[in-house]
Amino acid sequence: MEDVRMQPGQAPIHPVPATPLQSSREVRLRSRPDAEALPTPENFSLEAVALPPPGPGEVQVQNLFMSVDPYMRGRMQDRPSYVPPFQIGQALDGGAVGRVVQSHFAGLAVGDTVLSMLGWREAFNAPGTSLHAVDAQALPPEAYLGVAGLPGLTAYVGLIDVLKIRAGETLFVSAASGAVGAVVCQVAKRKGATVIGSAGGTAKGDFLREIGVDHVIDYKQTPDVTAALGEASPEGIDAYFDNVGGAHLEAALTHAKPFARLALCGMIASYNGQENGTRNLSEAIRKRLRLEGFIVSDHFARMPAFVREMTAWVQAGQIRWKQTVDEGIARAPHAFLKLFTGENFGKMLVKLA
Amino acid sequence: MEDVRMQPGQAPIHPVPATPLQSSREVRLRSRPDAEALPTPENFSLEAVALPPPGPGEVQVQNLFMSVDPYMRGRMQDRPSYVPPFQIGQALDGGAVGRVVQSHFAGLAVGDTVLSMLGWREAFNAPGTSLHAVDAQALPPEAYLGVAGLPGLTAYVGLIDVLKIRAGETLFVSAASGAVGAVVCQVAKRKGATVIGSAGGTAKGDFLREIGVDHVIDYKQTPDVTAALGEASPEGIDAYFDNVGGAHLEAALTHAKPFARLALCGMIASYNGQENGTRNLSEAIRKRLRLEGFIVSDHFARMPAFVREMTAWVQAGQIRWKQTVDEGIARAPHAFLKLFTGENFGKMLVKLA
Repeated sequence: MEDVRMQPGQAPIHPVPATPLQSSREVRLRSRPDAEALPTPENFSLEAVALPPPGPGEVQVQNLFMSVDPYMRGRMQDRPSYVPPFQIGQALDGGAVGRVVQSHFAGLAVGDTVLSMLGWREAFNAPGTSLHAVDAQALPPEAYLGVAGLPGLTAYVGLIDVLKIRAGETLFVSAASGAVGAVVCQVAKRKGATVIGSAGGTAKGDFLREIGVDHVIDYKQTPDVTAALGEASPEGIDAYFDNVGGAHLEAALTHAKPFARLALCGMIASYNGQENGTRNLSEAIRKRLRLEGFIVSDHFARMPAFVREMTAWVQAGQIRWKQTVDEGIARAPHAFLKLFTGENFGKMLVKLA
Repeated sequence: MEDVRMQPGQAPIHPVPATPLQSSREVRLRSRPDAEALPTPENFSLEAVALPPPGPGEVQVQNLFMSVDPYMRGRMQDRPSYVPPFQIGQALDGGAVGRVVQSHFAGLAVGDTVLSMLGWREAFNAPGTSLHAVDAQALPPEAYLGVAGLPGLTAYVGLIDVLKIRAGETLFVSAASGAVGAVVCQVAKRKGATVIGSAGGTAKGDFLREIGVDHVIDYKQTPDVTAALGEASPEGIDAYFDNVGGAHLEAALTHAKPFARLALCGMIASYNGQENGTRNLSEAIRKRLRLEGFIVSDHFARMPAFVREMTAWVQAGQIRWKQTVDEGIARAPHAFLKLFTGENFGKMLVKLA
């Protein structure tokens, strides 16, 4: 686990030579996991594939880092969702950041750093128009999978556009030390809010205090999250950023002030099977609450404004993050499974070059 | 049970002589009901009180009708809520419409019809400034406790301001034949929506069809509300007006279209004890749903616009309603208890003069 914080004036570097490749390895879905259980390593296979030179309009990209994310669990089942399911025998996909090593596309040059949805593989050819160039001089490349990528944008959109957080308000955040949650906490502090963050374990709690969280709830040491939230916010909360559902959501409903807002971003507790019922939703009437689910892909138009603001914060040392990095494509399934056991701390990544 | 529908050109009349009174009877809270059970007649007492002439600035009002409403159940417990609890040994209160029989207030004359929060009694003295004059030439007086009163305003605000219903959309309404629900259905039809209404029993279903509801779900005949809603709306619903919570809310979450809106107005199923959990709230993320609780008292500023629009609809015969009327102050507790057994049909009222 690494603690990442840029010093003002520091320039990120990543020494990968830009050499054309002849082959790649990729992780495929071998079988669908049991819908009510955790996936296992047997659900995945690692395969080598030949990599021809890129065609007209294409570039060849060597991935530097790939992301593993909880939402990928849903795509392993064959059911309708907001992203299509993975297909058996096909490579998985997801966010990745890589270096252009050959280019037949005018808009990208060898050495450029690009963001793609072609993770779970070491290298690939793709149309240049499907890739998004990022500034590798401004931030380390893996930042574009974390604080300056989809997790960061998720935090930003949920806090600024959905919750509309205001200075002086009290915000509750679950999974507060995670890839999304830690950005939520730090941006909320920048915006002048009081932040109550919940995470499991002493190390995560210490990190939350270091990044300025005002009250930390260690849910692994607390038999009753609702009581703990009441102690942390005797006057109630104005806003809740929900990454987990379950007991945390019930606690937020109980301690919401009248007219509080709740942004529903994730319910990881329910991803591997039966979901427990939320028992106190009638609080939403009594206290006129607004609960709103959102998905980051509806908000890609906010990306440029977000990256500008986030880059400035990171370069000023005002936003830091934790990341857990496994090395090599063969470790990718294992890295993914860590998301559901809480072994990761901060953004979970696989370093591919 | 009465079916009320005005004919164009019809003028309501109510022949109560305006004679000063010397006494009144009122219903008091004798004891608090068990929090987990239905109230019983023993929780109430009927008492006679002397009625002096009204003081300076006061008027004396003889109540014509009083309202009984589900929210009054919450006020029988001693706990914080959006309205203060009833006190033991004191008269209950709630919406009532009456006739001025003496006036020492310049703004009201003998014979005027007024709305007050001083129900559960036959007559009272009160400052003229605390009363709201209504137009008894335009609508029957009891309409101001129903379609043109708080239930109607609740329907109007939930549909127009919270759900922002639009022509061509599909709306699901639970407790659709009730005092709020029937107005929701008819206003939604006026606004061009397709309406799916749920109610219990053949008579209520027939009424819903008569007032233009497109699909009727008889939840007493349907083992699975979710399946029934799926059959009624194969393409899903755009909006849900929730009066009950429970299985109806779960059905709405399951069949909501992406970006659907859910207005949470009542959860009567949970008022007399333990609330079952809502098990599929994660649909709100997957489909980016907005759930919003509201309370009509936050929206009293909308009353004048609402009464104008509703009066025109009722006078044109475009909005009709059902009411169940018990007679005499002694029947008021019994009328209230009917709300929780489903014996009432439409707006439950007690006629006092």
